[in-house]
Amino acid sequence: MIKKIYIIGIGLIGGSFALELRKLFPKSKIIGIDNSENNLGKALELGIIDEKTIISQIKNPDIIIVSVPVKSIINLLPTILDCANNNTLIMDVGSTKNSICKIISDHPNRENFLATHPIAGTEFSGPTAAQEGLFKHKNIIVCDKDRTAKSKLQLGLKIFELMKMQISYMDSESHDKHIAYVSHLSHISSFMLGKTVMDEEKSEKNIFDMAGSGFESTVRLAKSSPEMWTDIIHDNKENIIKSLNDYIENLAKINCLIKNDRFEELESQLKSINYIKTILKGIN
Amino acid sequence: MIKKIYIIGIGLIGGSFALELRKLFPKSKIIGIDNSENNLGKALELGIIDEKTIISQIKNPDIIIVSVPVKSIINLLPTILDCANNNTLIMDVGSTKNSICKIISDHPNRENFLATHPIAGTEFSGPTAAQEGLFKHKNIIVCDKDRTAKSKLQLGLKIFELMKMQISYMDSESHDKHIAYVSHLSHISSFMLGKTVMDEEKSEKNIFDMAGSGFESTVRLAKSSPEMWTDIIHDNKENIIKSLNDYIENLAKINCLIKNDRFEELESQLKSINYIKTILKGIN
Repeated sequence: MIKKIYIIGIGLIGGSFALELRKLFPKSKIIGIDNSENNLGKALELGIIDEKTIISQIKNPDIIIVSVPVKSIINLLPTILDCANNNTLIMDVGSTKNSICKIISDHPNRENFLATHPIAGTEFSGPTAAQEGLFKHKNIIVCDKDRTAKSKLQLGLKIFELMKMQISYMDSESHDKHIAYVSHLSHISSFMLGKTVMDEEKSEKNIFDMAGSGFESTVRLAKSSPEMWTDIIHDNKENIIKSLNDYIENLAKINCLIKNDRFEELESQLKSINYIKTILKGIN
Repeated sequence: MIKKIYIIGIGLIGGSFALELRKLFPKSKIIGIDNSENNLGKALELGIIDEKTIISQIKNPDIIIVSVPVKSIINLLPTILDCANNNTLIMDVGSTKNSICKIISDHPNRENFLATHPIAGTEFSGPTAAQEGLFKHKNIIVCDKDRTAKSKLQLGLKIFELMKMQISYMDSESHDKHIAYVSHLSHISSFMLGKTVMDEEKSEKNIFDMAGSGFESTVRLAKSSPEMWTDIIHDNKENIIKSLNDYIENLAKINCLIKNDRFEELESQLKSINYIKTILKGIN
């Protein structure tokens, strides 16, 4: 019987989790914890949480969702694991997984913990961005599942299934390596595209009238939270540097083709990249 | 009285123009010209055009829309302008404008021509992608308007207004300089992002399960037509090289910040790029 659910970090992801868990466990109490009194106030007002508290006041938790930025997860997770009793399931939802799993690797309550990464962000943040159905048909990556006690793992997976998520499994090191390419690099490329265009066009605001949905689509992620992304980049530094090196090299090579009028090679390269159509069909 | 409208290149843009012009001039005949018999067949089948013909058979045209790739516009436009009579309005819709305007600068029928760039593409192509309403509330850039005879300019502008487009004016050289940043660079960055990720992950297709809507959004433009984009890149070579140099420099700089653990500077840079939110609000 799930009676008390704690959500640490009541933003977009934490808030949306709270909404789902309320549907799944209508008799449970949902208690929010957040650095920001403003976030807590809004979450109470919107009915996302029933009460607010602080970490040192956590008592008899059945489920704890940790949805704060990666750096804070690393700082707080050992203390949060101290709060676990025999039945507690603690899950984080951070965008990196390796250093998070390392920091609690030898914690006596390691088995109460399930490392997850729901692929379901948007560029918006805060409890007002929280929404029911955010996770529906989205992927969630569960890392190092053999380090979680069977009963806790089963509870976690059942929740994700009821939320209609697609579950995949990975070790935390591979997660960070691959996510650098398929997510983190997109964010940095988008931020830098935004910067490049704004630097060039800053004195001529009306130029952006020329921009269409293509520009909007590629710079959408440049609206993301700088704090959160600085954290992620810091934490996944080595993998991101490698992906950025590869990206810069590809851009420099295509620039070289353009400079040298090698347009047939350029066209054949663009054609082979079109294969991305097939890949994207598999993405929600 | 508009009786005969010729659409040269009956793809996404040409086809969508045909659909709009049929609504505006229901009594006119719409005649399609295309290299591809397949496109012509589909356009006839879908009722986008009434007849097909070839350029040398153009007779008494009231309006001619030239919506073929940029290189073909440059090749064909002088011949097409030869077909103009006193009343003919000829418009192109190419993604670059400078070399197009140059090639017919001294043509005796220059005044029949209006250079335009509707900012309304999608990553799809062909007559089956054509749709009514594609241009509604979109921007159209009209270039070098003083080179067009007043009566033709007025007809063109009236058509765009009836299509509910937002019209802006620019000289063709400025158009190409700015569009390199706000459109062409987005496409190249997207193609190269697609390449970088596919090269890294090609042996592990399931990795793309990890990708979310962020990745999809940034690589969407990598689905675009390679032929069309090779043409555009070729034609706007110098401006694109400059924008790519700027972009690569910004990426190298941020990679340097990451390598040297200068995360405070990185965060402050991401924060200032967030200003893009304000800019994007103005884009449809």
